[in-house]
Amino acid sequence: MANTQNRTPRGGTPTVISIDAMGGDAGVKAVIGGMAKSANKNPDIRFIVHGDEAEIDLHLKRKPELAAITEIRAAQDVVSMDDKPSAALRSGKKSSMWAAIAALKTGEAQATVSCGNTGALMAMSTIQLRKAPGVARPAIAILWPSTNKQEYNILLDAGADIKADSEDLLKYAIMGASYARNGMGLAQPRVGLLNVGTEEFKGRAELQDAAKLIGTVATSSDFEFVGFVEGSDIPSDRVDVIVTDGFTGNIALKTAEGTATQVSDWLKVALKNTVFSRIGALLALGTLRRLKNRIDPRKVNGGVFLGLNGTVVKSHGGADATGVSAAIKLTFSLAQNDFSEKLTARVASGLAVSTDVLSNSEEASK
Amino acid sequence: MANTQNRTPRGGTPTVISIDAMGGDAGVKAVIGGMAKSANKNPDIRFIVHGDEAEIDLHLKRKPELAAITEIRAAQDVVSMDDKPSAALRSGKKSSMWAAIAALKTGEAQATVSCGNTGALMAMSTIQLRKAPGVARPAIAILWPSTNKQEYNILLDAGADIKADSEDLLKYAIMGASYARNGMGLAQPRVGLLNVGTEEFKGRAELQDAAKLIGTVATSSDFEFVGFVEGSDIPSDRVDVIVTDGFTGNIALKTAEGTATQVSDWLKVALKNTVFSRIGALLALGTLRRLKNRIDPRKVNGGVFLGLNGTVVKSHGGADATGVSAAIKLTFSLAQNDFSEKLTARVASGLAVSTDVLSNSEEASK
Repeated sequence: MANTQNRTPRGGTPTVISIDAMGGDAGVKAVIGGMAKSANKNPDIRFIVHGDEAEIDLHLKRKPELAAITEIRAAQDVVSMDDKPSAALRSGKKSSMWAAIAALKTGEAQATVSCGNTGALMAMSTIQLRKAPGVARPAIAILWPSTNKQEYNILLDAGADIKADSEDLLKYAIMGASYARNGMGLAQPRVGLLNVGTEEFKGRAELQDAAKLIGTVATSSDFEFVGFVEGSDIPSDRVDVIVTDGFTGNIALKTAEGTATQVSDWLKVALKNTVFSRIGALLALGTLRRLKNRIDPRKVNGGVFLGLNGTVVKSHGGADATGVSAAIKLTFSLAQNDFSEKLTARVASGLAVSTDVLSNSEEASK
Repeated sequence: MANTQNRTPRGGTPTVISIDAMGGDAGVKAVIGGMAKSANKNPDIRFIVHGDEAEIDLHLKRKPELAAITEIRAAQDVVSMDDKPSAALRSGKKSSMWAAIAALKTGEAQATVSCGNTGALMAMSTIQLRKAPGVARPAIAILWPSTNKQEYNILLDAGADIKADSEDLLKYAIMGASYARNGMGLAQPRVGLLNVGTEEFKGRAELQDAAKLIGTVATSSDFEFVGFVEGSDIPSDRVDVIVTDGFTGNIALKTAEGTATQVSDWLKVALKNTVFSRIGALLALGTLRRLKNRIDPRKVNGGVFLGLNGTVVKSHGGADATGVSAAIKLTFSLAQNDFSEKLTARVASGLAVSTDVLSNSEEASK
């Protein structure tokens, strides 16, 4: 590590990102490619990269500038996409994923990125970093393309846990707002709770309870609670942060991915249908390419684990160099911002307020 | 009613559809317009239309051919979109919605269509028609644009009930398969159970139980059970019928609507960006219009209530004449097919098999 920190920074204080080079579907090459892209844009970035030494070395050799700011740490095992989290925990202590998180725990790095198995990454991160005080269920927060000024909304939990009770949802609201503040620079983010319809069958009991809890802490936690939102509001400018349990969040995310892919596929086929539309498509090529970028999940690549003592970012398993670079960029800006410490403080003060308000109202009702 | 049935059919036996003309956001005009479109295509269709007599008459007067096959029944009250289902049940006995369902119950009509309040329509339908034997929770089945040959997949429950236990999900599978057989002509529909991921956190316990139950009845119920599917599979050709609880189904549906709208909006803006892309868009106009039709929710308008003694179809509240016509077309073909009776028989035989198999395996494990 001394190795990395002793290099003369070209800008301010260097920020060290610990990278798991293995386990992504696109291989080590995509990870190294993404690191190179990010390094080009951020003179203050440094890397510790974990995995198969020979393979990493092979790709790093071709990028001497990147090699100069990167320390390689050999790890003999790889957590595969099919490994169950429990199995990965039992037998994965020599894996690149475990080592990538360990470097964050020891303070050598300020944040960790992996393209590997989400469940295993969450399990290993939770074991090594521990949950932040007051957090029972950590969550995965993702960026969702939206019509908002900041171009993205935040949705959590996108699948860390299949359950969430009303207190978990309260903490998701506080954590999501903190992420919006630090990741997007929104002073007063608008938080909505995902639910069905606006009629009588208005969702489950825990959602009604969660709405009350979130309402009590909104003002003191510097966010605005807009109440219930529906699936169609997720990409809208009614809201900046959408709170839901991990089962529902994952279904929503995958459904949106499926829909976006379907619409682009149809568009592609449709534009090949006639000579006129082919010429039209050619003329509009640049425009259509920009649109594709806008809805391209690789460009918004990075699920942030919230509620742990440390910043861990899950990059999409199939991400190419562009996707990995986007995840590293996000990780870098959160690490520079001391995001993890700020989030922990927000959860603590939010919980204090909700407990106060609730016990006062219990007192009053006696 | 004699009035309607005595008219000489231009084709086979006339099928009578009972229509609630009130309560839709687009008003009586859209409903009458939709009826006229449907009547043009189906010589065997007849209507009983319920609502404000003066208003219906006003719009019918301009369509003498439609007027000739339509009976008007005055109803003084309207269930509004904001009415809670319980309130609608208490005070809505003189509403057009109540009367539209009543005409199905008495046998005067073979099916009912309403653009009104979904919760109220389900509550009134359940009270008047009663649940089919063996069904604890009726479901709303919707058509979802897909890459399948039949161009649509079926998803249920899209929001009739926010909960579903494993036995409800079993019945949804049987009912969805029956709908696919009768509505789409698929002899052996493929049924999938919506869940998250393929890793260890593989959804809730009731989903594991439901998968076992559905597996036991698949062969005897003439469908193929493909196991768990994810949100991204909903529009895919891996599956014809997607089974889920009404909370999750509603979130998925609304999320897909939001995503499709977002992508089309971006496409519109993108194609106006440069002169080249404007010319391109003009040349591809017909193609883009066809695409819009393909993803237009109005074209696939019609949520079918499954699990009641009678066929009730909910048309989208905001549907225009095209949307209402699509809902009527669907209703007409189901009514002609004696769908409701076939579905009830399927549920009964499916339950008999699952009970047999389960009690045999319990015996065996003793």
